[in-house]
Amino acid sequence: MGKESIGITVSKKSDFSEWYTQVVLKAKLADYAPVKGLIVLRPDGYSIWESLKYTFDKKFGQNGIRNGFLPVLIPESLLGKEKKHFAGFNPEVFWVTHSGENEVGDRLALRPTSETLAYTLYSKWIKSWRDLPLKINFWNTALRAEIKATKPFLRTSEFLWQEGHTVHATQEEAEKEVFKILAIYKNTVEEELAIPVIIGKKSEKEKFVGAVYTTTMESVMPDGKALQMGTSHFLGQNFSKPFDVKFADKDNIEHFAWQTSWGVSWRLIGAMIMVHGDDKGLVLPPKVAPTQIVIVPIYNSEEDKKQTLQKAEDIKKQLELKMMRVHIDDRSEISPGYKFNDWEMKGVPLRIEIGPKDIQKQKVVLAKRYNKEKIDLSFDKIEKIGQILNEIQSKMLETARKQADLNTFDIFDFSEFKEKIGKGGFFNANWCGKQDCEDKIKDETGADIRVIPLGNKNKVGKCIYCNEPSTIVPIFARGY
Amino acid sequence: MGKESIGITVSKKSDFSEWYTQVVLKAKLADYAPVKGLIVLRPDGYSIWESLKYTFDKKFGQNGIRNGFLPVLIPESLLGKEKKHFAGFNPEVFWVTHSGENEVGDRLALRPTSETLAYTLYSKWIKSWRDLPLKINFWNTALRAEIKATKPFLRTSEFLWQEGHTVHATQEEAEKEVFKILAIYKNTVEEELAIPVIIGKKSEKEKFVGAVYTTTMESVMPDGKALQMGTSHFLGQNFSKPFDVKFADKDNIEHFAWQTSWGVSWRLIGAMIMVHGDDKGLVLPPKVAPTQIVIVPIYNSEEDKKQTLQKAEDIKKQLELKMMRVHIDDRSEISPGYKFNDWEMKGVPLRIEIGPKDIQKQKVVLAKRYNKEKIDLSFDKIEKIGQILNEIQSKMLETARKQADLNTFDIFDFSEFKEKIGKGGFFNANWCGKQDCEDKIKDETGADIRVIPLGNKNKVGKCIYCNEPSTIVPIFARGY
Repeated sequence: MGKESIGITVSKKSDFSEWYTQVVLKAKLADYAPVKGLIVLRPDGYSIWESLKYTFDKKFGQNGIRNGFLPVLIPESLLGKEKKHFAGFNPEVFWVTHSGENEVGDRLALRPTSETLAYTLYSKWIKSWRDLPLKINFWNTALRAEIKATKPFLRTSEFLWQEGHTVHATQEEAEKEVFKILAIYKNTVEEELAIPVIIGKKSEKEKFVGAVYTTTMESVMPDGKALQMGTSHFLGQNFSKPFDVKFADKDNIEHFAWQTSWGVSWRLIGAMIMVHGDDKGLVLPPKVAPTQIVIVPIYNSEEDKKQTLQKAEDIKKQLELKMMRVHIDDRSEISPGYKFNDWEMKGVPLRIEIGPKDIQKQKVVLAKRYNKEKIDLSFDKIEKIGQILNEIQSKMLETARKQADLNTFDIFDFSEFKEKIGKGGFFNANWCGKQDCEDKIKDETGADIRVIPLGNKNKVGKCIYCNEPSTIVPIFARGY
Repeated sequence: MGKESIGITVSKKSDFSEWYTQVVLKAKLADYAPVKGLIVLRPDGYSIWESLKYTFDKKFGQNGIRNGFLPVLIPESLLGKEKKHFAGFNPEVFWVTHSGENEVGDRLALRPTSETLAYTLYSKWIKSWRDLPLKINFWNTALRAEIKATKPFLRTSEFLWQEGHTVHATQEEAEKEVFKILAIYKNTVEEELAIPVIIGKKSEKEKFVGAVYTTTMESVMPDGKALQMGTSHFLGQNFSKPFDVKFADKDNIEHFAWQTSWGVSWRLIGAMIMVHGDDKGLVLPPKVAPTQIVIVPIYNSEEDKKQTLQKAEDIKKQLELKMMRVHIDDRSEISPGYKFNDWEMKGVPLRIEIGPKDIQKQKVVLAKRYNKEKIDLSFDKIEKIGQILNEIQSKMLETARKQADLNTFDIFDFSEFKEKIGKGGFFNANWCGKQDCEDKIKDETGADIRVIPLGNKNKVGKCIYCNEPSTIVPIFARGY
């Protein structure tokens, strides 16, 4: 088992796309399924998803949102009830036509998203103001047949996500919900995955089909491309009318309800890999790392082995009592150097090296994955490791923020824009608000409006394309 | 909102099937989806599933099992690789033939179970003895088009379940795993859902297609029918050979691996409803109840209201500190009587009634859902409620065990068997071991061999059908 065969063979800088795929596969997060465009998650990959799920569930729960289950099959007739919505998804839908030997009557769609199904049920469940707000989240998968080249976590024909669907008595309450969710998304991604994001609205052109408006969370990746990390939609009454989601108010008069829907997917894991990984492989933020600390005992003789393993066990127990996730790599016939490379590739945030000499000196060696720093830590300070993990977590966010800042530019001149876009990045540029300019910018640069940031300070300026007066400063970028 | 409109309109005894459906729908556990045979879970239903999931995850984790994710689509060619297995599922498979406007090449099956997919991957992941045991569990759904009449939780064309798939270097280790899992199933169902089960083996005829043998967990329902509550299969090398799941042992020689697979589904929730429910509706075991305690404040004047709600809040906080799940029903313009009925239908284990007179006497009224007992509890004993919930949990198991015992019979004469089977029940009867007798018993009574209990004490006797000497005493019953 040579080092070469398991390590990443390209650098992050030289071939970002190949680097990414190798990290996903070699760190054993995911693998390809037999059907093109589909992947499976191995335990280390799924564990990161479970960790995010746990955090979101806690925050959703505090906000009065509960979980439910929806089946994967939606009748074609139902999916087509909101016309624009259907047209948006139609080319990507997987269709079930047979069960066993028999044709099914109405074709069945594998859910590309569940608005139509959920709201058919909501319309039965909601009778009066007492039934509102109704806030249900679904942890499931969505299926959208991808024609473009697929990429694990970033673009696959089936993906894990959560989709939340809420119903409210007033427009105001629904809109508040949209932004509450967006805030939960932002703080979770920043705190758990150490990825800085920018939140705001999508343009009319880029909004979700069927929504009144779409809010989004975007981040610039190290290759300069933008990644949409999650969206929260204000649906207004666009669905409540065709799906008859009505309630009798206190005055007994019936009203159509106001709705929201929102989702994040395992793309978040893709972003984490891209933002933090390096030439040695994955780098995991401690909060979501399946293993936070790996202990590598180093010894030559049988006698040393016993003593070293014993001490390793002691340290493990001590850390586990503080709820840290620790693994001892006691594989025999494998060198410490090989083990270091192996765990570095898997992105484990902290390595503890311990051998007889360390024991003599009553200390261990700590190696931090994210910045490769090595320090000594005396036995009586082992408890500090929790704090060290927290520091790593916040330093990783800080580093990622600097990286994103370096990839963000204010731009005032369209020819300069065209010149610079080739290297990627987020471009803050004034825009007049007309879709015509948006379309032309896209044609000539390949860049979309990713997000019109919240708190956009109405900087008076001129549209970068048509020079008309403008007060909107969206972020333009090429996207994933 | 009259009582009549929301209550259960038939008794459990008079029309068990209709009673069951009404409980599921009216307690808002689940509802029908627009596609025949499919259901959705509402938050109270899904919460019970999440509670079971939490317990299983903990126990699986302690046993070295980790979770993963598999996609829902399996190519037809792969599904057919183990012939018998495929033949077993083929009539129930949903087939995807199109994505968007385009035909897919190889038809895609919606997974009826994931052995074929998982083992294709395992064969890539497993190289050496170091990679074993490999133990992964998947929380997903299975899709099997039902032709028979469907019933929420008991028989649906898509169902939530977990499927575990493990790989071992030796037969012995794999067989141990099969029984370890079976034990986890049994203690979880008995401890969490308060349902007594019998574990043992299936007959050759009734085993899982593709398994060497199948172990099962069975329970007799109040209507006398048997319910299969979970199975754990020893697959031997039946799949490792066609799927090429091999490992190089320490001596560097390649061997086919030994495998197991096992699963429980949301049927467990169906069993819980059937076993514990009564004419007023659902009765939830405290451990899995989304709401364990409902507080109904009772008052007439505004002044009383304030005082009563304040005290209700105090009690709620006190109980929540002890990790109990408490809800105060402060709906206005709805009578306490209506609320009592409502929460009784929803099966909440404990109701606390509190009004001004109670406050004067420094006590509350406690009403237990499962036995309708009402007792006074003084304010300074509120903390005892945790203990009361534990007592309810164990009393419910005890009651269910008695009910099951009343439905279990030793039988030695075939004509008596035929006479009694009409009323249902578990029948312990000697059997010679020949499938011919098994088939004929099925033909003449409608009863299958549900389980050959573990620790079957080799009671020497005569086969109930052919009178040949017999040492096997399976449980025969008609099943769901």
